[in-house]
Amino acid sequence: MIRCDDLMNGYRIYQDTEMFCFGIDAVLLAHYPALFSGDRVLDLGTGFAPIPLILHAVAKKAGLTGQPEKPFHITGLEIQERAAEIAARSVSENGLASEITITVGDIRKAGELFAPASFSLITCNPPYMKKGAGLLSEAAAVAIARTEIACTLEDIVRESARLLKMWGRLAMIHRPERLQEICALLLRYGFQMKTLRFVQPARDKAPTMVLFTAVRGGGPGTKVSPPLIVYGEDHRYTEEIIRIYGGDTVSGGDTDRKP
Amino acid sequence: MIRCDDLMNGYRIYQDTEMFCFGIDAVLLAHYPALFSGDRVLDLGTGFAPIPLILHAVAKKAGLTGQPEKPFHITGLEIQERAAEIAARSVSENGLASEITITVGDIRKAGELFAPASFSLITCNPPYMKKGAGLLSEAAAVAIARTEIACTLEDIVRESARLLKMWGRLAMIHRPERLQEICALLLRYGFQMKTLRFVQPARDKAPTMVLFTAVRGGGPGTKVSPPLIVYGEDHRYTEEIIRIYGGDTVSGGDTDRKP
Repeated sequence: MIRCDDLMNGYRIYQDTEMFCFGIDAVLLAHYPALFSGDRVLDLGTGFAPIPLILHAVAKKAGLTGQPEKPFHITGLEIQERAAEIAARSVSENGLASEITITVGDIRKAGELFAPASFSLITCNPPYMKKGAGLLSEAAAVAIARTEIACTLEDIVRESARLLKMWGRLAMIHRPERLQEICALLLRYGFQMKTLRFVQPARDKAPTMVLFTAVRGGGPGTKVSPPLIVYGEDHRYTEEIIRIYGGDTVSGGDTDRKP
Repeated sequence: MIRCDDLMNGYRIYQDTEMFCFGIDAVLLAHYPALFSGDRVLDLGTGFAPIPLILHAVAKKAGLTGQPEKPFHITGLEIQERAAEIAARSVSENGLASEITITVGDIRKAGELFAPASFSLITCNPPYMKKGAGLLSEAAAVAIARTEIACTLEDIVRESARLLKMWGRLAMIHRPERLQEICALLLRYGFQMKTLRFVQPARDKAPTMVLFTAVRGGGPGTKVSPPLIVYGEDHRYTEEIIRIYGGDTVSGGDTDRKP
């Protein structure tokens, strides 16, 4: 079934409910990295393109879009043709076809699809689970979004290192339990983790997600922010989450990099 | 000037105020790792031995000491002879000479001072700053505790890998900005970071310290706990900090390892 949801700025997104529908992690990631005019953004494994759409809305709110001399452009790369078709439909119906491009292709070969060092920001809400770590009872289209079947974390980091210009940023969300592996992979491919923020369901609950920005060729030093808390003691969204859904950026994602 | 302070369990510690006196970081670290009967503990860069003394008090409270068939023993390694002398005086006056040994020696060559794989737990409250990163206006005895003059993080991790038995734990406290480097070094020397907990001065303040436990040969997966908050909104110690100073362990340091 195709479902249509409202995003901020009046943008709408189509999703096939039999495939993987986006969650709060995509929303948080799309609001996390600092954006600059003239940014060329690539979203790896874009699915129905929630991240390109929300990120464009955030950029528009910040006045970064509609500057012909410094075009702000987003490319979404998706391996599943059906998801890419639906994503392209959302992009088109939101009137964003000149600012967001959906490309069908494999993350593992992303470095061959685009020119080297052609992006300033790469985002990725990857499959969280290692192959063999969880049950694979789900439909293939859902499994590919959850489990490292079509690409691994190393594929993402390696291709990002090829596609980002020097000082370009890689912004991701992942599971806290994989933090050591993430740090080591980033270092191996020439990235410095510059910002880190854990996401906790509640004040006294262990984090379930971690947001980070890594800079290609960045200097040492990670800025860790206090955790982002999703639910308050009243079991309702915290004020910060409500502000993010309303279009505010997630604080702590600014790498202090000059654009 | 020699000063004498009370620790928990009626233990007392002597310190030379012209050298480096211990702070809350040593207290938190000494309460962080899960302890087991029969543990053989090594504290690297022990200074006036606050960590051996507090850790012994915690172990005693948990009923782990005084078991002749499974002796709980702590060795403190210190490069500065004067600090080691004062540490040995504290150990002796607390009646712990058979359970805590102070050894003068260099962390960089710790692997030659003790038999390989002879410890089950290593603790270290290391110098936080890289050489050249800060001003070196302090007295040498203070500088050596703050800056990586006498040993680097890599020295600590490398020697710990030699001295810990398989599944042995390395428990440390460090600065959050060095997290990526810590993760990568641990992986390089065969450690898996199993637990991680940031320490924030207040709920809305960025963390200033990070506690972690790494297991030699451990399986993948890091358990991240909600941050430990030092001061409440009333600018007084939080209940958790008061409980820790009273002898409770810092939660989140248990690696789920069978002893």
